[in-house]
Formats: sequence, structure tokens, C-alpha cells
Amino acid sequence: MKRKKLVIIGGGFGGLNACKALKNSELEITLLDRSNYHLFQPLLYQVATAVLSPGDIAAPIRGILSKQKNVRVLMSPATSVDQKNRKVLTADGDFEYDYLIIAVGSRHSYFGNDGWEQYAPGLKTISDALSIRERILSSFEKAEKLNDPKEIEKFMTFVIVGGGPTGVEMAGAIAEISKKTLLKDFRNINPALTKIILVEGSPKLLNMYDEPLNKKAKESLESLGVTVRLGESVTKINSLGLQIGGEFIETPNLIWAAGNKASTLIESLDVQKDRIGRAIVERDCSIKSDSNVFVIGDSAMFSENGKPLAGIAPVAVQQGKYVAGIIENDTPKDKRKSFVYFDKGSMATIGRARAVMQMRNIKLSGSLAWFLWGIVHIMFLISFRNKYKVMSEWIWYYLTQRQGIRLITHKTDWS
Amino acid sequence: MKRKKLVIIGGGFGGLNACKALKNSELEITLLDRSNYHLFQPLLYQVATAVLSPGDIAAPIRGILSKQKNVRVLMSPATSVDQKNRKVLTADGDFEYDYLIIAVGSRHSYFGNDGWEQYAPGLKTISDALSIRERILSSFEKAEKLNDPKEIEKFMTFVIVGGGPTGVEMAGAIAEISKKTLLKDFRNINPALTKIILVEGSPKLLNMYDEPLNKKAKESLESLGVTVRLGESVTKINSLGLQIGGEFIETPNLIWAAGNKASTLIESLDVQKDRIGRAIVERDCSIKSDSNVFVIGDSAMFSENGKPLAGIAPVAVQQGKYVAGIIENDTPKDKRKSFVYFDKGSMATIGRARAVMQMRNIKLSGSLAWFLWGIVHIMFLISFRNKYKVMSEWIWYYLTQRQGIRLITHKTDWS
Repeated sequence: MKRKKLVIIGGGFGGLNACKALKNSELEITLLDRSNYHLFQPLLYQVATAVLSPGDIAAPIRGILSKQKNVRVLMSPATSVDQKNRKVLTADGDFEYDYLIIAVGSRHSYFGNDGWEQYAPGLKTISDALSIRERILSSFEKAEKLNDPKEIEKFMTFVIVGGGPTGVEMAGAIAEISKKTLLKDFRNINPALTKIILVEGSPKLLNMYDEPLNKKAKESLESLGVTVRLGESVTKINSLGLQIGGEFIETPNLIWAAGNKASTLIESLDVQKDRIGRAIVERDCSIKSDSNVFVIGDSAMFSENGKPLAGIAPVAVQQGKYVAGIIENDTPKDKRKSFVYFDKGSMATIGRARAVMQMRNIKLSGSLAWFLWGIVHIMFLISFRNKYKVMSEWIWYYLTQRQGIRLITHKTDWS
Repeated sequence: MKRKKLVIIGGGFGGLNACKALKNSELEITLLDRSNYHLFQPLLYQVATAVLSPGDIAAPIRGILSKQKNVRVLMSPATSVDQKNRKVLTADGDFEYDYLIIAVGSRHSYFGNDGWEQYAPGLKTISDALSIRERILSSFEKAEKLNDPKEIEKFMTFVIVGGGPTGVEMAGAIAEISKKTLLKDFRNINPALTKIILVEGSPKLLNMYDEPLNKKAKESLESLGVTVRLGESVTKINSLGLQIGGEFIETPNLIWAAGNKASTLIESLDVQKDRIGRAIVERDCSIKSDSNVFVIGDSAMFSENGKPLAGIAPVAVQQGKYVAGIIENDTPKDKRKSFVYFDKGSMATIGRARAVMQMRNIKLSGSLAWFLWGIVHIMFLISFRNKYKVMSEWIWYYLTQRQGIRLITHKTDWS
């Protein structure tokens, strides 16, 4: 019997977990990814704020799958899917499939203002994180050299757009680096001039959480010196700064954490899409036009009780494993049980020793939530190697309160 | 009494050690560097070969000097020195000095063929190391996708030009990553197709060492599968490969470790320069035209017994401390004792558990030399933080034989 071919596009949480769940199957698996590494995205903000190195939260995909002999890993971005001929097209040739899993994640959305991206980068990739790190650190260096207080203030102003988990975590982390590191390492900068502003269009932070956690998050940020502006929208972003309502704030330090859209690969699929370009999938995560093609994770819109599942790692992980089960057993469409998301809770950290978490009806905030956050994230890190490294970095950071990776690496050397 | 002003240009081994030696002085010190970090350059080849992260061997200069209140650190590249008015010129303004220490290091020299640099990068900065890492890892990824053995061979060929310590260390490290990692993580590549070639123009490797160490180094490399070609010169480098004598070797993987030249800042000094642009300094490391201006480390040519001191870290460290003593005591030129280099020995590592070392008449090779190499390098790492991190990476690498930082980070994400 000919072995069936499975192509997985994307080595993130969804794709990688589907692949690993199939380690004993008879399938011929090809995993395609644009990068050569799997990224532990929930900790990416710590690379952007100089606590962790990229190597601490990323691991080569082929290293993770080194012992799984039924999979071939290729660093080839898929350009489109030819559903009729059951092929994935890439610059390195076509890949035929019997089954296809699409798990390509999402990108930032600037709500039609794509020109804003160059001034307000988002945080999805290692390269995004390094460029935000460079921007933040360079601003401190610049401010140290200036004498005009108005100019200094500009470089010491940081605006984060979007009050979801990424925005809240970035605001907290920037507050910590600027308040603590500045005091010790800089001679000229007056920390009182630092302004950190978090802008959110809706009336509360962390929309996916229930009260009182939204309030707790706001209070925690305010106690770190962050100005939280709710119910306000950004109407303009350019090289000088951004417009919020009637006010124009001058700063080169803008970070975008406000919206996502599905990756462009989804466009080539014969499937209905939602407002942000995600594939609207069936109860079994397949698409209506082909029950052997699955879309999972951030690129999929899966409704549960009339509400779409959030674009978070646990959803992608569970969908990956679920879809792997269907494929391994060759279950026909009409015999497949619906995917059910098991909510293990959500958590967001706000600086050192502060976090909020919610697991169904249990709500926690403060240092216990922060401690649990640390445990859960260490457990989730995919390879033992990274657990060990991140833990040692955190112990270091906790004890010394000094971000270790404060490198501006894009500059050239003495020439 | 007005405090005297010292400007130090460069936060490498020389500049940083001069600065630290002056921690109790009454001087007003300004340290200028193009980067915001001090780099432990002797381990840079381990970043290029995916064993260490940039953050493991670099630390923010202002973090290292955080507690030294008489110094101000600025990230400003010096553009030239105005000796007449005793000022260092930068894009951020001029800095007056009573004393000046120039410790700006060196750059690669392509012996007049500057066009070669884009095809055969050298290894001086973090950015150099990351681009070499990207080139090596991308070649493996490319080879995995190809079918034509001739094409595969091209991507699996690595040529290192220059048989000094950097060239020898790079050749050994590439041999290890390609032989070991390839076997485990790739499915298509035949490791027998890998070719690693080390080209050296003179008749022996590691010229600064005595026999039998040069032979030992050659044997060690050969046992790792490296082809060592002595007494041969590169006559052409282009996008397709390089010409050695009558042979043209096709490969995109070229690494330049063959020559250095002093940084361009030295050009603006009123001092005699040697063939590679280094300032020829007096017995006290000052320049003839001004006894309050010192040039140390790789940018200086200091002769001892008619032989110039090598451009290695211990020379820069000792010169930095020596010059600091003169400045702290305000010793007039005629009262200054000559600088004397205390040779603590040299060492180079050739893959895991192999090294050569020489300390005056003591010569060692093999695993004992390698073990001592590890101890010495850990001791030299400037901050405790990095000692701890590098040691844990090395223990990991030693036990697993897997390079952990195999990330190709310049690529963009799914878009």
C-alpha cells in the first residue's frame, strides 16, 4: 500500500504539535516553514525588552523533530495551494498531499493604514522583537547625549497601541527597564521625564478577561508609572509621532499591538473568510470544499457557542493534536467528532511579580498569579534545553533586576 | 583645582580596562563607543557557529561601568581627532580632553581587494558573526532541498581563508557542526559531500606558535575532515566562489580570516603608521607628537625586541592598565617606564576536546590544552553574568554535542 502524504505548512504551535502527534504513523510527512525555527511567541516581548536572547525562545524545527523519521523538514515558504491537483506550491517546487494542514499564523493588521507599520512595528517575529529592542535602547542612548529637555522628553516617551495581552506585557516591561535601568546606568537622563502610554480603543484592558482583572491590570500598570488611556483611538501615525484624538504625541517609540489579520496564504484557499481574512472552518477544522484540508490556529476562525476562539497557543496546540487524530485514523468526515477547546485559562504578566490569570471562574492577580505564570510558561517551552536556559535567565533577572541582553546589534563596527 | 578630562575611544579590552583601572581617580572620564556593548571577541567564532548567543559574549558597556561614577558612557562614533585643540569630534558634538586613549581595534583587510568583502565576510562584530551563521545554516537548508549532487556539493563546500587562530577555530567548528548535526537532523544530505578547506598563504598554520604545535593543529583539523592547503594564495573571489592557484572552487560559503588593518580613525592622527595603518607608538604607548595621547591594542604597533606585539586581547588589557597608571599619576613623559608585555601564553581550540597552547617554552596540545582553554576563557569573561551563561551553554553543548542557537533570523515571517 502506498503511504499517504501529509503536508503541514507552518512549524508554530499548531503545525508542530500535529506533526509530533503523528510520530508513530505510516504517513510521509513534509513540514514546510519560512523560518528554520519554532518560536515560543508568548515570550517574544521579553526579547523585545532585553530580558531574553532569541536563542532562549526559539529552537530549530529540524532539531525538535530530529528523531521523528517519518517527517522531512524544509525551509520553504508556501506561495499558494492548488486544491484541484492537491499540491502546495513553493519556490522550491510543488509538494503533493493527500492530507494538508495549514497552520501559518497571523500578521499585524493596521486596519487599512499599512503605511503605519514602518513607524509602529508589531511583535510577531524575532526580527520584529530585535528591531523594537534596538529602538528602545537607542532612544535611551540618544536621550543621554541630548541637553534640550523637550528633545529628551520625546525620546523618553513610549506609546503602545493596543490593550490586549501583548500591549499590557510590553507596557509593563518597558516601565521596568526605563525606571530601574535608567537610574543605575545613565548619568544625564532624568527618569521623571519618562512617559509610557498605553492606548486602547475599547473601554477596558484585556478584553478576554472578566472584571475585576481588567481593573487590576490597569492598576498594576499605573503603579509602575504607565498612563493607561482607554476608549481612545489612534487616527494618525507618521515619522514624528501619533495622533490620539485632539492630541499629537511626538515620539519615535511606537509599538503596535492592536490588531491581527490572517496570513496571505489563506487567500488562495477555496473557503469563506472572516473580516480579518481567517478561514472559517467546519466543526472538524477542515474546510467545506475539501475535508482533507485543515486550517488550525491563528489562521482559522473556529466558533464555539457563537464566539470565535482566541488566537492563542493552547487553541493551536489542541487543534493540532485533534486534527492529527483524524488523519492518523483516516476518519471520514461524517464520523468525525467536533473539536472542543479545553480552556486551561489565560494569563498575562505585568512586570516583575505582578500578573493576572483567569481559568473559567477562578480569577487571580498579584504575585501568586505571576508565580503560576512563570511555572506554566517554563512547562510549555518545547525543548528541555530552552526551559533550562530561560529559567536561568529569569533567576538572574529576578535576583539582579537587570536585563541582561541590552545589545544594539544592528550597528556596524569601527570601520 | 579643575578636574582633568580623559576621553577614551573604544570600549573593547583596551579601553574598558583602562577605564576600570581609573575607578578611584579624580578624572572626568568620557568613554565613546560606536556600539553600546563590550564584545568578548575571542569567542565570536562560537556565535558564528551557533554554539553561543550574542548575549552570551557581549554586555552593555554602561552596565559594566554602572557603579563607576567618574565615567560617562556615550554611544557616539568618533569621526576624527583635532590634536591642536585637544578635541575628539563626533556627530553628537566635540569632546575636549587633557588625556586621550585611542583603542578602536582593527578591521579586516582584503589587501586592496575590498570588493571581496561582500562574498567573504570576516569575523569582527556580532553582525559579522550573525551573517556568517546565517550563511552556513542557510547552505545546509538549501542543500537539503536540492537533488543535483553537483549543486549540493557546492553548498556543502566551506572555504576559510587564513590559517591564524580565527581561521583554525572556524574550520574546526564548521567541521563539527556539519559532520555531527547533519547526520542527525537532515534527511537528504550525504555528509560525505561536505568539504571544508582551510587556505593559508604561508607554509604553516598558527604562525605565532612554535613547532610541533603548528603540525598538531594541522593534524587535528585533518582528523576532523578539514583539507588544509598551505602555501597557497587566493587570487580571485566573486559571487561564484574563489580561485586558488589554477583551481576555481564553486561555493557561496567563504569566510575571510586572513588579514587586519587599523581603523580609519588612526588616519586623522599626527603619527607614523605601519603598513596596515596602525599607529607606531613610543615605549609608553603615547604618540610622538603628543605625550598625552595614547594608542593601545589592535590599533597600535608596539615593537618588543624588534617584533610587533600581536593583536590579541591580553596585549590590549595590559596596555590599558599600564596607560591608566601613567594618567592617574600624571607621570611626565621622561619619567615613564617602558611598557613590557607579560606573555601569559596563547591558545587556540580546534573543535571539541582539542586545542593547542603555548606559554613561553611550555607547549601543550590535545584535551588537556582544550580544558585549560575553557577555564581561561571563562575566567576572562568580563562580567559574572556571562561566565555563568557561557558555562551553562558549554556544558549543554559538551553533553549533547548539539549547537543550540541554530537560528536563521534575518528572514521575515509568513506575510
